[in-house]
Amino acid sequence: MAKEITPRETDYSQWYVDIVTRANLADYSAVRGCMVIKPHGYAIWEKMRDQLDRMFKETGHVNAYFPLFIPKSFLSKEAQHVEGFAKECAVVTHHRLMNDPNGNGIIVDPEAKLEEELIVRPTSETIIWDAYRTWINSYRDLPLLINQWANVVRWEMRTRLFLRTAEFLWQEGHTAHATKAEAEEEAKLMQKIYAQFAEEWMAMPVIQGVKTENERFAGADETYTIEALMQDGKALQAGTSHFLGQNFAKAFDVKFLNENNEQEYVWATSWGVSTRLVGGLIMTHSDDDGLVLPPKLAPLQVAIVPIPKPAPAIDEAAEKIMKALKAKGISVKYDTDMKKRPGFKFAEYEMHGVPVRLGIGARDLEKGEVEVARRDTKEKTSKPIDGIADYVSNLLDDIQRNLLERAKQFRTEHTTVVNNFDDFRDALEAKGGFISAHWDGNTETELKIKEMTKATIRCIPNDAPEEEGTCVLTGRPSKRRVLFAKAY
Amino acid sequence: MAKEITPRETDYSQWYVDIVTRANLADYSAVRGCMVIKPHGYAIWEKMRDQLDRMFKETGHVNAYFPLFIPKSFLSKEAQHVEGFAKECAVVTHHRLMNDPNGNGIIVDPEAKLEEELIVRPTSETIIWDAYRTWINSYRDLPLLINQWANVVRWEMRTRLFLRTAEFLWQEGHTAHATKAEAEEEAKLMQKIYAQFAEEWMAMPVIQGVKTENERFAGADETYTIEALMQDGKALQAGTSHFLGQNFAKAFDVKFLNENNEQEYVWATSWGVSTRLVGGLIMTHSDDDGLVLPPKLAPLQVAIVPIPKPAPAIDEAAEKIMKALKAKGISVKYDTDMKKRPGFKFAEYEMHGVPVRLGIGARDLEKGEVEVARRDTKEKTSKPIDGIADYVSNLLDDIQRNLLERAKQFRTEHTTVVNNFDDFRDALEAKGGFISAHWDGNTETELKIKEMTKATIRCIPNDAPEEEGTCVLTGRPSKRRVLFAKAY
Repeated sequence: MAKEITPRETDYSQWYVDIVTRANLADYSAVRGCMVIKPHGYAIWEKMRDQLDRMFKETGHVNAYFPLFIPKSFLSKEAQHVEGFAKECAVVTHHRLMNDPNGNGIIVDPEAKLEEELIVRPTSETIIWDAYRTWINSYRDLPLLINQWANVVRWEMRTRLFLRTAEFLWQEGHTAHATKAEAEEEAKLMQKIYAQFAEEWMAMPVIQGVKTENERFAGADETYTIEALMQDGKALQAGTSHFLGQNFAKAFDVKFLNENNEQEYVWATSWGVSTRLVGGLIMTHSDDDGLVLPPKLAPLQVAIVPIPKPAPAIDEAAEKIMKALKAKGISVKYDTDMKKRPGFKFAEYEMHGVPVRLGIGARDLEKGEVEVARRDTKEKTSKPIDGIADYVSNLLDDIQRNLLERAKQFRTEHTTVVNNFDDFRDALEAKGGFISAHWDGNTETELKIKEMTKATIRCIPNDAPEEEGTCVLTGRPSKRRVLFAKAY
Repeated sequence: MAKEITPRETDYSQWYVDIVTRANLADYSAVRGCMVIKPHGYAIWEKMRDQLDRMFKETGHVNAYFPLFIPKSFLSKEAQHVEGFAKECAVVTHHRLMNDPNGNGIIVDPEAKLEEELIVRPTSETIIWDAYRTWINSYRDLPLLINQWANVVRWEMRTRLFLRTAEFLWQEGHTAHATKAEAEEEAKLMQKIYAQFAEEWMAMPVIQGVKTENERFAGADETYTIEALMQDGKALQAGTSHFLGQNFAKAFDVKFLNENNEQEYVWATSWGVSTRLVGGLIMTHSDDDGLVLPPKLAPLQVAIVPIPKPAPAIDEAAEKIMKALKAKGISVKYDTDMKKRPGFKFAEYEMHGVPVRLGIGARDLEKGEVEVARRDTKEKTSKPIDGIADYVSNLLDDIQRNLLERAKQFRTEHTTVVNNFDDFRDALEAKGGFISAHWDGNTETELKIKEMTKATIRCIPNDAPEEEGTCVLTGRPSKRRVLFAKAY
């Protein structure tokens, strides 16, 4: 099976597509740019969603659901938002089909034209703030900490499974606050939660930073981001959290009576992560033999394979091991399929990224042992059946840690500090990755660098120390380094 | 607060709207026929979804996600399906907006017309069976037991919050099987699971039966249904499971190689329940003081109210009780809001359907007691704090049981067996509910009765015994009684 995956060295893009399709994660559909998320891919997304949902709820958020459609006029209400989002989107213009009177199948009923066109939500700030106007009256109604799990549509020209599709699944938090400070704190808190999720659950290290004005969300005063580095040296924007100021409150006239009995506009944030994270997960850890999954997000953590096939003594040992693993909350499957040989099964579990594989044969049993194979390093060892559950439990933790460490090391090796434009270009050319460089703070300079190198400013890292320097392009003074990279 | 709810006797429809809005379950949005599901309503739906999801997974189903959009031509592929679904639906015709060159805001870009219109899914059989064509090759790929949680859109003319909205949330199972018998068994299994969920979790008794040809899902060979009875005597179709025969397999050319190496068309089922269930839940149990929720689906099960306000001794007792309740997995909140008086809080928890309310005052504490109020019967008693967690735990079970019993009794009282058309009309007029009557099996008769009385055949109950009789309308022979009712 493994031979069907194109090696990363040969063609990184094809390798990615091979992994996604061969590990049964997703597929393109009959609708341009829209994907089908297959059961294995969806199971990973479910694990992500459940954990994120727990983290949101632990920090006081609740879920709600707002309409899929947005009246066209809503998009124009916030001046910058319309520029950013009222472009490539799906527009509903009619509400009925009919039989073609000329007998050519079904056609759109021209009589059923909508008075105002509806846009399939590309993001929900407008429809949500329209609702908040009636929900918020007094400071007692604040803060409003609401999240929505939903599908959204952006009519992308070039799509890639999980990373950029016309329709995708995501969560979007939309909070309302009485003060600027509280809203800013919320936006930063969600950035922190995203970073924590990325590192602790996805084993994907991220840089937390703030976007430049040019890269900011349309309608935001500040955009906080988490940026990850993929194995091809490109950055992936993995999640963003926006401080929206009073922009949407003003656009939708959402005011509240404060404690001093005065009318004030409400302060807002919004924040989101999407099925794009599944793409990030794949590209952070996988190898030329298939998917590699961090144990905390693996739908199946342990596979037990009888060698060469099921037999009473092997079945008995497998049952015992399964029971012990399940008691520890570890998901496990005993693969009794008689139609497939062990070698085929091994390759299949490797392809699907199952973190740990146990092989049980008659000779192993004689010694009271099983063969343990870990997916991340491909190491195999023999271990006593006695105490195997403890061993596997620790091994899963170890794999989770190792994947994060490995990805951190890759990032360290692919982060270059440069002080002039030649070095900037050389580093980008030679190994890609993050380039830490001084920038003069002008959008014009930023765009020029992008035009010349395709690299964009991913963020101004939160922890970037103040440091005197000169812009790599213009030589103008700069007070802080920023991170550049080519990006997805 | 309670006075703001219109009594059921006065205006049942208004009572329903009052409950939905006053208990903060949902609201209409700026988009015609689309609702906003507010946090309290969504929390109930989440509890339903999580339990259904567990039941689906326990019976071997997995989740996946298919595109929101369906190419217009797909709808025409299954002859009956197109008649049923290619009517009132949202049609996407363009993929871009632009600034009006005449300066009138944004308009649809006429250049961005889609070659083929896309329909926002009203249900997903077509797009899913188009995918199954590439997923299914051999009997080894079967059965395919897939479920999807998604939003769908049907452009309804008359809408009601939760019961009938243009957009709604639901799950749709789509399974593929090698044999007719297996597919039929699956369709019946899902009907049974829906019935079990309705009775054990929603405390909503349902009749399991099969639909007449006229009421069948467009594209199905058989539709299994669960039918509930609301407090106004109208029936609610609460969930359906369809045996689709080979209709979609033939329409989308989905064949498999059977064990004898022959090509065969695949057998199919589909089944779904939606946010309509929230409407059914409300109308089954609620009263003129607000929402009544079965404990198993209540987002908050117990509210503790300090009387008249928090005080050290009361706080201490409340903390102790909370800890004991949480240890039993019971959700509980101690309401320390100083801005609201106890009477206000009582009315609020009643309105929101919190099953159990505990009041703690100084005098209660002296006696080592708390006041326990149950939402379903409104009974209040004093109980010792010692052992209160056990008492409340049993009480929650008791409320769950009582709600089901009460609803069953209501249904019994509102089910009338009739043997002639005068009695049929009288019973329908006098108290509504289910009318058990003989019918001659003809669609024509069925439609005539509907025209004359507005009652439709809800189902032929699974457990209807064979019984000789004559049709209430035509006097023709009949072998089995069916259930009629006016329906939502």
